Amino acid sequence: MKSKLLLTLIIGAASAAAVAGPIEDQIRFRQSAYSFVGWNCAKIKNQVIDHPETYNKDQVVAAASAIAATANSGLGGLFGAGTDKGTGWKTTRLKSEFFQQPDDAKNAGVAFITEANALAKVAETGKIDDIKAQFGKLGEACKGCHDKFRTKE
Amino acid sequence: MKSKLLLTLIIGAASAAAVAGPIEDQIRFRQSAYSFVGWNCAKIKNQVIDHPETYNKDQVVAAASAIAATANSGLGGLFGAGTDKGTGWKTTRLKSEFFQQPDDAKNAGVAFITEANALAKVAETGKIDDIKAQFGKLGEACKGCHDKFRTKE
Repeated sequence: MKSKLLLTLIIGAASAAAVAGPIEDQIRFRQSAYSFVGWNCAKIKNQVIDHPETYNKDQVVAAASAIAATANSGLGGLFGAGTDKGTGWKTTRLKSEFFQQPDDAKNAGVAFITEANALAKVAETGKIDDIKAQFGKLGEACKGCHDKFRTKE
Repeated sequence: MKSKLLLTLIIGAASAAAVAGPIEDQIRFRQSAYSFVGWNCAKIKNQVIDHPETYNKDQVVAAASAIAATANSGLGGLFGAGTDKGTGWKTTRLKSEFFQQPDDAKNAGVAFITEANALAKVAETGKIDDIKAQFGKLGEACKGCHDKFRTKE
């Protein structure tokens, strides 16, 4: 399973690199992807944590599917060499450590894919406690990468 | 089928509206979503039109799935009243006609969802000619909305 994920990540990177274009485009596209993930996370948080009385299975499934599809879309291709410096929608916050610690960077990507796919799966069950627990794991994967590879604002 | 799509669109709108927040956030999130769609469209175009010798089924499936999941994520909730004026990542290009012609606006959203879902389905077949044809239909849906509701740059 893990090797399949790694393969997906690597293939995605190789593929996307071909059309990722200039550094500024890569940064802008990844800022877009993660902002889109953030919006979908906010919707899930709203329904399973802040206002569980508004929980709607179809909406949470849609948001979780969007996060998983984004995670599986080959985001690695938007982290080409040199993209720790530059401006997309805004100046990138990616640390140079991302390129200096490739194994950790790869693991961070795999963790995101793993937890996002698990969330999409558990969302289908409609079991709100399980969704909440898995949403927490996804949050940890996000935080793990942010703490290590993203500068504080 | 069409009524189901409309329902998805409307439910999505109602749901997301609750957490969409300020106008600037709605604009930034939708600019992110459509930029992410644009990146995935570029990857598909690259593999099925510009460089078919590089076609890779898994990668095209991943890109098409990402586009479909984005289309199904309730983007209508990011088009709240007043969002034809304002700045997200940049000044919005949404025309006021979007709110003055709600039926046309709804149809544009439904067309995007319909063609994106059809593309995700046909991508799974691996038939490059069919994918190319459906990718063209998705492009028409995008262009239809842009021509009508987005200002030229």
